[in-house]
Amino acid sequence: MTQMFGQHFLQIPGPSAVPDRVLRAISMPVIDHRGPEFAELAKTVLGGIKRIFRTVHPVLIFPGSGTGAWESAVVNLLAPGDRVLMVETGHFATQWRKLTEKWGIEIDFIPGNWRDWADPQVISERLAADTEHKIKAVMVVHNETSTGVVSPIKAIRDAIDALGHPALLLVDAISSLGSLRYEHDAWGADVTVTCSQKGLMLPPGLAFVALSPRAIEAARTGGSRRSYWDWSEMMALNQTGFFPYTPATNLLYGLKEAIALLEEEGLDNVFARHDRLAAAARAAVEGWGLEVLCENAEAHSSVLTAVVMPEGHDSDTFRHHVLEKYNLSLGQGLTRLKGKIFRIGHLGQCNELTLMGTLSGIEMGLRDLQVPFSARGVQAAMQCL
Amino acid sequence: MTQMFGQHFLQIPGPSAVPDRVLRAISMPVIDHRGPEFAELAKTVLGGIKRIFRTVHPVLIFPGSGTGAWESAVVNLLAPGDRVLMVETGHFATQWRKLTEKWGIEIDFIPGNWRDWADPQVISERLAADTEHKIKAVMVVHNETSTGVVSPIKAIRDAIDALGHPALLLVDAISSLGSLRYEHDAWGADVTVTCSQKGLMLPPGLAFVALSPRAIEAARTGGSRRSYWDWSEMMALNQTGFFPYTPATNLLYGLKEAIALLEEEGLDNVFARHDRLAAAARAAVEGWGLEVLCENAEAHSSVLTAVVMPEGHDSDTFRHHVLEKYNLSLGQGLTRLKGKIFRIGHLGQCNELTLMGTLSGIEMGLRDLQVPFSARGVQAAMQCL
Amino acid sequence: MTQMFGQHFLQIPGPSAVPDRVLRAISMPVIDHRGPEFAELAKTVLGGIKRIFRTVHPVLIFPGSGTGAWESAVVNLLAPGDRVLMVETGHFATQWRKLTEKWGIEIDFIPGNWRDWADPQVISERLAADTEHKIKAVMVVHNETSTGVVSPIKAIRDAIDALGHPALLLVDAISSLGSLRYEHDAWGADVTVTCSQKGLMLPPGLAFVALSPRAIEAARTGGSRRSYWDWSEMMALNQTGFFPYTPATNLLYGLKEAIALLEEEGLDNVFARHDRLAAAARAAVEGWGLEVLCENAEAHSSVLTAVVMPEGHDSDTFRHHVLEKYNLSLGQGLTRLKGKIFRIGHLGQCNELTLMGTLSGIEMGLRDLQVPFSARGVQAAMQCL
Amino acid sequence: MTQMFGQHFLQIPGPSAVPDRVLRAISMPVIDHRGPEFAELAKTVLGGIKRIFRTVHPVLIFPGSGTGAWESAVVNLLAPGDRVLMVETGHFATQWRKLTEKWGIEIDFIPGNWRDWADPQVISERLAADTEHKIKAVMVVHNETSTGVVSPIKAIRDAIDALGHPALLLVDAISSLGSLRYEHDAWGADVTVTCSQKGLMLPPGLAFVALSPRAIEAARTGGSRRSYWDWSEMMALNQTGFFPYTPATNLLYGLKEAIALLEEEGLDNVFARHDRLAAAARAAVEGWGLEVLCENAEAHSSVLTAVVMPEGHDSDTFRHHVLEKYNLSLGQGLTRLKGKIFRIGHLGQCNELTLMGTLSGIEMGLRDLQVPFSARGVQAAMQCL
Repeated sequence: MTQMFGQHFLQIPGPSAVPDRVLRAISMPVIDHRGPEFAELAKTVLGGIKRIFRTVHPVLIFPGSGTGAWESAVVNLLAPGDRVLMVETGHFATQWRKLTEKWGIEIDFIPGNWRDWADPQVISERLAADTEHKIKAVMVVHNETSTGVVSPIKAIRDAIDALGHPALLLVDAISSLGSLRYEHDAWGADVTVTCSQKGLMLPPGLAFVALSPRAIEAARTGGSRRSYWDWSEMMALNQTGFFPYTPATNLLYGLKEAIALLEEEGLDNVFARHDRLAAAARAAVEGWGLEVLCENAEAHSSVLTAVVMPEGHDSDTFRHHVLEKYNLSLGQGLTRLKGKIFRIGHLGQCNELTLMGTLSGIEMGLRDLQVPFSARGVQAAMQCL
Repeated sequence: MTQMFGQHFLQIPGPSAVPDRVLRAISMPVIDHRGPEFAELAKTVLGGIKRIFRTVHPVLIFPGSGTGAWESAVVNLLAPGDRVLMVETGHFATQWRKLTEKWGIEIDFIPGNWRDWADPQVISERLAADTEHKIKAVMVVHNETSTGVVSPIKAIRDAIDALGHPALLLVDAISSLGSLRYEHDAWGADVTVTCSQKGLMLPPGLAFVALSPRAIEAARTGGSRRSYWDWSEMMALNQTGFFPYTPATNLLYGLKEAIALLEEEGLDNVFARHDRLAAAARAAVEGWGLEVLCENAEAHSSVLTAVVMPEGHDSDTFRHHVLEKYNLSLGQGLTRLKGKIFRIGHLGQCNELTLMGTLSGIEMGLRDLQVPFSARGVQAAMQCL
Repeated sequence: MTQMFGQHFLQIPGPSAVPDRVLRAISMPVIDHRGPEFAELAKTVLGGIKRIFRTVHPVLIFPGSGTGAWESAVVNLLAPGDRVLMVETGHFATQWRKLTEKWGIEIDFIPGNWRDWADPQVISERLAADTEHKIKAVMVVHNETSTGVVSPIKAIRDAIDALGHPALLLVDAISSLGSLRYEHDAWGADVTVTCSQKGLMLPPGLAFVALSPRAIEAARTGGSRRSYWDWSEMMALNQTGFFPYTPATNLLYGLKEAIALLEEEGLDNVFARHDRLAAAARAAVEGWGLEVLCENAEAHSSVLTAVVMPEGHDSDTFRHHVLEKYNLSLGQGLTRLKGKIFRIGHLGQCNELTLMGTLSGIEMGLRDLQVPFSARGVQAAMQCL
Repeated sequence: MTQMFGQHFLQIPGPSAVPDRVLRAISMPVIDHRGPEFAELAKTVLGGIKRIFRTVHPVLIFPGSGTGAWESAVVNLLAPGDRVLMVETGHFATQWRKLTEKWGIEIDFIPGNWRDWADPQVISERLAADTEHKIKAVMVVHNETSTGVVSPIKAIRDAIDALGHPALLLVDAISSLGSLRYEHDAWGADVTVTCSQKGLMLPPGLAFVALSPRAIEAARTGGSRRSYWDWSEMMALNQTGFFPYTPATNLLYGLKEAIALLEEEGLDNVFARHDRLAAAARAAVEGWGLEVLCENAEAHSSVLTAVVMPEGHDSDTFRHHVLEKYNLSLGQGLTRLKGKIFRIGHLGQCNELTLMGTLSGIEMGLRDLQVPFSARGVQAAMQCL
């Protein structure tokens, strides 16, 4: 009984639904990437994206995915044999670890239960023990997309600084930037990476890397063998509005429009909207008598809400049901959470009624599959909006 | 406090939200309307639209609006001084009457309270009294868009036939075709008019007229002065895939795609979907303790639900509120219903979650404005889906 | 041997190629035509289109074609039995005449050979003979699309005025507005009609009527039976940004963009561009040793160039050949010119290289079909650019 | 005097003009890259692209540029200290060399004058001298985009095989695939790399790598540190229709459409079309009395034609002029050719009239700037079409 008519509700935690203004922008004809019109476009988006990262330092844009942005951070700063400190916040922290290991980096991996944030206190203890300053970088995921848990970047920076430890701070803001408050400069990140298909509301295909002066200096003399993801030539050419190799022109058109959308609404309003929607989503989960995966009340994500499926019910069966019956895509549980949770994305352009449609679909799906629950989630969510 | 971000919920009873496949189709480059590629397109849409009207007879497509389709029906069949029977089902029946009067037609207008259908019994009585057969046509609105009341076309045809009265049956299916079951041939309509922006899910700009052999014959010898809306030359040229004057090419691209969408889902499934959504909408209204405008249980529309605003509350104030706060467009009360009702459109591509988002927005809006109501509508609607 | 790959050269004299900015604009989602956002759009386009007509008086926009605009001019001003003066400039003047006749108007039709303009002198003589002022209107085609001949509107107005004759001046600027210089107010037109798919660079589907105060006054008390094409209610509602029936929203989005395109380039630059392109097209025809249909050197059109096919060669065979081999659409000869001419459209967004591609395709096509000609047209055209 | 109205002629040798069908395809809404609809899309494009490479072995698609595809070939097969043989065909061969050097590879670089192909005889001599088989790979650019010279891949493979040398053959088909005949399997390439914005007629943003069983085996055990560009996980996941990290969904929509376009025309017809256009372009250059950069009559490219600017004239001045006056983008001379040549792209969807428009623009531009030349190029080009 497939009923895939009408509006698809793409409520995975990224790629997020792309606004139609952005879709139209990416359908503009390609232009000469070495011509004057392109240079103007490049300067506009390279300037605008800084305001979204809240930085005055360079932000680099690569044709690539968030995985590429991770790699860019690693290969420009770390050499085989270097040691870093990472925290097991969930699937994506684990993936970033794997990637980093492939580059021969030694990783001090603070274990986690995938339900809590990266604890500044634990990070502080590990760094304090590193009296020889062998740890070159602390690498943390800001918003762990697999779990809906947000880590306190500023507090982690403060912990590093309090010890006078020279470690760089590398942050994955892949699913947070543009939806959750994030302050590259004020929070003291050295590298912040993101991609196009989450809070920036674009299709996938762009990788972003925001730098600090310390990171730029470290890359100048260190890092691994690299070419594609190298920062130096990119930074030099960007000054003139060009790129060392052909950029993904049409996604840059979309980026210009996406930045305009965020700034028309106002970044603070954007963040407040997502906080409001997330509070409603959690109220719904509570109303259903289900459990939010995140166990730390200070760490709830405003980008997505991961919901624990009751024992004896498979979350993938549930997800397939709501996709087929209600044209609703929810995020799956990844690796160790497979079948155990579903994730509700409320990032990007999500608004009140899109969320309410989504929560209604979940409530009806739980009912359809006779999952033990209380049909009070939708009602509870409306109280928050 | 404008919050016009994210998905707009266009839930007026037309223009309905246009599927993105249709929007992309209408953005294709214009072609020569006298060339071979155009002829193929024309034949495809002229053939396909017959299947939607459920007719084997010609359907004509004019650049124009539904009002133009009304005029086309009038001027091809009626001459000044002719008499017709019309029924006051609501605002649009009244508008059609006004248009017809401008053409010098004498109108026998059966009064109505805008909350009931066109009663076949009353029509039968009027025709029975017309022993001289002066009434040339019965003109009825199938789905009265201003009230959400559906009139029984087949029963009206049967009433005419039972009397052996020669009156033609002219039907306005403007807001029903493509969403509500409609059978031009089987129900015995002589002319059925519609437009592009309702159940056909296109932008406004096309007027459609489906004919019967009797109507074609009547037009051949009768009617008023006319040129643009004339049927004869249009029918002749359509046979070869062309039009007497430049057709609205890009809307025809969209029409091809819209017909494909309807037929991929299956017309019977489309009708069942709208019945299901409408039942849920009425359940919501009942849950809120509010009143559906339509008082005839057999006549409820599956295209829209008109809701009576409680005394002391203005429906336009309410509509402006939900537009600004929830990005939701609802239909207004027209003329004598101004400020007294709001209309929920659930036609076209509307699906379960779009409806639930809509109903949530209404429920929150009623709460925000402290309208006396019970917050049980959304819950009740989910029971029906 | 079909080779329909790559860029199609749509060089018929309308519909003209639609700029991609306009195509994207018309693919925006539909909005509530009774909401505030629509009112703003309506005011923008209703204001902007006045600047294109060069008038301060109302311009009305109907969902319809140019034929509808013709009808609107006729039914609002003329009643059955009224007499008008028209000039046989070509196919479209003849079509307008037929339409007017259907409305019961008596037509004094000045014969023409389809190769010359509407002669102000002849018009003057006819009006001078009309001492009783029975002629209510002079109806002239500005740019005769079927022949590429332009008539001198200002001179005709002067001729009427010189006689003190009260006839209204009704002008068909269907294929000229937006490409050829046209001055509704300064030239003293009472009604100017056009449509969307020529100089305005939109898909077909909109009819435009520009009025003078005299026309408005005449329509207030006179004209034929009418409803759809009536001016009074349209003018009244337009004041508030709305329309008496659902307007063709998405084409209005496109109109906004098209007006922006024309004004970004500057109307005077637009006119100069078309003059330049037309001079090049005529130089090509001369270079080929072929004949331009227009025999009056003062009357050459900058919108299209009609070329006489040498004896013994069929222009439709030629057109089919260049369509199939070079993906080039040229305009056909209409009615009495069928098979005898082809028409090169260089209106709308046509620019130098588009024209040169077009002329190259013609030159190669003439060669392919062994038409007697001299292969010096392309070379000659470049001299003019 | 900017005249940037109308159709832009994007005639650089990539990015090439994107067909409007492809532009519309990439504007479709994003879908869940882990859902069933995506898997179907992925299988379609992964299967289709094999037919374009003419291979039955895996083709991998990365979010990235052609530079990324180069890097992928290098890091999966070569380790620091490995030796390869490359040929200086022009700017891009030189760039690929630089990238390879960054990975610590030792390069035997056969010098060239940027006007000739990679000579199989010279390659054979170098390999014959490598009796210890230290050379792990021969790396050649098929169509050197900076010069318009095509190297004989099959002959190079034969030369390697004739010696029984085990070197892998790595080919850059970046600007040739989809426009020039290319046979990955039949010609014995081990790796062929390309990107989206040339013969595939997409916007930039995708990197492609076609493999041979030998290459797959070599990568399994060898190569450098890598993660993003690694083949193994990509190949494994592709089998199920998924990717190790988020793919560039919307460009994959476009790829599906682009493959359809190529196969509707037929690859052999596509290649013949480009051969025909290139012959016309060279005829034009000869007609102007100018020099084609490529000095080897067997090596002329059907993708682009590089033209030597007469002494005393700067090709960039010329390019800026035709951009501003004729809305025509031509390719610049790169590095050592800067200011000395301009490049005419006639790849992708270019057809006869687009080329003729382009050549006309060049001829008029040469005249405008009083470059010594003969105005017979356009005429000569038409002889070939």
